[in-house]
Amino acid sequence: MKLDDSSLQKFGFIKRDTLGSINIDPLQTGGRLTEAAKQALVEWGDGYSVCDFCGGILDQIKKPPIYDFVHKALPEFLDCDEARVTNGARESKFAVMHSIGKPGDWIVLDGLAHYSSYVAAERAGLNIKTVPHSGSPDYYLDPEGYATAIEEVTKESGKPPALALVTYPDGSYGNLPDARKIASVCHEYDVPLLLNGAYAVGRMPVSAKEIGADFIAGSGHKSMAASGPVGVLGVSEEYAPIVFRKSKYNKVKEVELLGCTARGATVMTLIASFPDVVKRVRNWDQEVENARWFSARFEEMGFIQRGQKPHSHDLMFFEAPRFYEISEKVKKGRYFLYKDLKARNIHGIKSGLTKYFKLSTFGLGKEKLGIVADSFEEILKKYEDV
Amino acid sequence: MKLDDSSLQKFGFIKRDTLGSINIDPLQTGGRLTEAAKQALVEWGDGYSVCDFCGGILDQIKKPPIYDFVHKALPEFLDCDEARVTNGARESKFAVMHSIGKPGDWIVLDGLAHYSSYVAAERAGLNIKTVPHSGSPDYYLDPEGYATAIEEVTKESGKPPALALVTYPDGSYGNLPDARKIASVCHEYDVPLLLNGAYAVGRMPVSAKEIGADFIAGSGHKSMAASGPVGVLGVSEEYAPIVFRKSKYNKVKEVELLGCTARGATVMTLIASFPDVVKRVRNWDQEVENARWFSARFEEMGFIQRGQKPHSHDLMFFEAPRFYEISEKVKKGRYFLYKDLKARNIHGIKSGLTKYFKLSTFGLGKEKLGIVADSFEEILKKYEDV
Repeated sequence: MKLDDSSLQKFGFIKRDTLGSINIDPLQTGGRLTEAAKQALVEWGDGYSVCDFCGGILDQIKKPPIYDFVHKALPEFLDCDEARVTNGARESKFAVMHSIGKPGDWIVLDGLAHYSSYVAAERAGLNIKTVPHSGSPDYYLDPEGYATAIEEVTKESGKPPALALVTYPDGSYGNLPDARKIASVCHEYDVPLLLNGAYAVGRMPVSAKEIGADFIAGSGHKSMAASGPVGVLGVSEEYAPIVFRKSKYNKVKEVELLGCTARGATVMTLIASFPDVVKRVRNWDQEVENARWFSARFEEMGFIQRGQKPHSHDLMFFEAPRFYEISEKVKKGRYFLYKDLKARNIHGIKSGLTKYFKLSTFGLGKEKLGIVADSFEEILKKYEDV
Repeated sequence: MKLDDSSLQKFGFIKRDTLGSINIDPLQTGGRLTEAAKQALVEWGDGYSVCDFCGGILDQIKKPPIYDFVHKALPEFLDCDEARVTNGARESKFAVMHSIGKPGDWIVLDGLAHYSSYVAAERAGLNIKTVPHSGSPDYYLDPEGYATAIEEVTKESGKPPALALVTYPDGSYGNLPDARKIASVCHEYDVPLLLNGAYAVGRMPVSAKEIGADFIAGSGHKSMAASGPVGVLGVSEEYAPIVFRKSKYNKVKEVELLGCTARGATVMTLIASFPDVVKRVRNWDQEVENARWFSARFEEMGFIQRGQKPHSHDLMFFEAPRFYEISEKVKKGRYFLYKDLKARNIHGIKSGLTKYFKLSTFGLGKEKLGIVADSFEEILKKYEDV
């Protein structure tokens, strides 16, 4: 591409078509900015803005209160000993895997682990053993499966895995496994546990200490109303000196964080939304109630909710055999659902999906959820003769 | 910290004190957002905004034109075969080091390399050999030093280093080494070269192919008028399959990028500013002229510019013996300069520095640079009897 005026025209400011829609994509519902975060974004948008206030260590900046946020508020919020801000949950996971494991070591992942957990382990050179789930319809994860997996690794490789990970909840079905029991099983074998809380931290109460997780990863752009990429990482006292070890070349810089991570608008939007995020987490029971109400309405229409029931998270997976039937017959084929939802200003079911899809009810409230449910009902009706 | 209403009050939206000042911090001058980027920031601020348009691979998104940007515009701009967007220049460097080197391998760095190059190499488990510079006043980097360093590594470790890196320009003196000659020296030994262009890409013309660099790293928040953390990485055809290798667990995700990198406002501000960035790079001769004019005015006042002369970059290092003298005598001590500049609405010389400091003239234009130079002159005058 020659970079002339004509080709450059396609870049510059670009509108975001989905901005005004009701978005039920699980990736988006917890990442919508608060008003304070929108203001922070404009205020701190320039490149390295927070570095104007930095004496050499990002998380030691006193004003703006990054120090208080990272070293006082975050450990309290995650209920862990030490915390840092990272470039995302996957970067948090990689930092843990890369510092706790050595290439050739093993890691145990739950069978519903996010692809980024696999990729992070692969990047760290770790071999992967998965704990199977029970499959459809519950996708239940038996904590005892961790014992079996750890024993298998030990038998095959001569030593226990370096690390275990559990996804809490998983990103497909929104299942909340018994993380506390899993931590206890792992600890019986002296295997530390990393809790991937990308869909938990910032949405629902979660305590690393109560669970017994040695590490906890959260996502700012997924669940903490922040502009990404930004994440959080909590580590126990025992492992903090390893994960947050300092460079031998530069005494104040932490190796796994490459010195500095979120250094600008991202950390400032995380801080801006934090008071609201703390408050919304306290409102989690209402979110669960909304999710259950929504699931019940969907089931009344003949959709089948997969995963835990009654459900305890806003992320839900549905099977919609009737939509699949329709897609086989209508002109627009498998794109009919996406288009009919778009016409109703609803976004978030991936284009082309009909038989199976996931969605999230988080933060939408009963009124908007009602509009979504009514819209699905209308679409069913529209095609009732098909 | 108990997360109650009183403690949460310190978070939320926070003002940025330096927003209206003339900022000469080298970290800031190339990262100021364009108007288009400010608009993009607000439009695309929410968490995972671009993922609404993603079919599974970030850099394949057609609308917004991330695909065209990453696969057509960026390779042209960097003059390399393949490019990607990353979470920053240091993350670009780590991705290269981690995929090209194995723990225990060696890397050759120039003696003026940024700390993040050291930390990235350390994180990748690489041993570091540095190419010495000539020291004060020029800090000249002899390309032949790379031959010596490579030979030393080969002698000591039994094999050549996995990689060499050159900082172009360095972040202390703004020196532009003879990167083309360095590439040619490295290639004589079959050692690939990574060009750290965090202060070049987006400010001045730079061509990976003309230089002969196998890899080129750039920074969005440092030099491409983008809201960070965001960076770019260019790789030659030969090494692209290694650095951008796909996961064995997920066929579309690239391991070194952990699947996805800049997935939201950061990539959209990079794209928003891109047309202006392409244009400002064409204006580089004027920037160099401004830097030289500024340097001359500073030298007239008795400050001494260190590093290359005549200078060919906006980042400059000054020695100011007179300011040091003043700082020894005045009440405010070494903070007098910071405070006197602040009173004149100028920011960017680190608080407490007087004898040595660096600054950048980039993008400020003659008028603002005149104000800065006049202000330094006034401050000298203010203390002339001290």
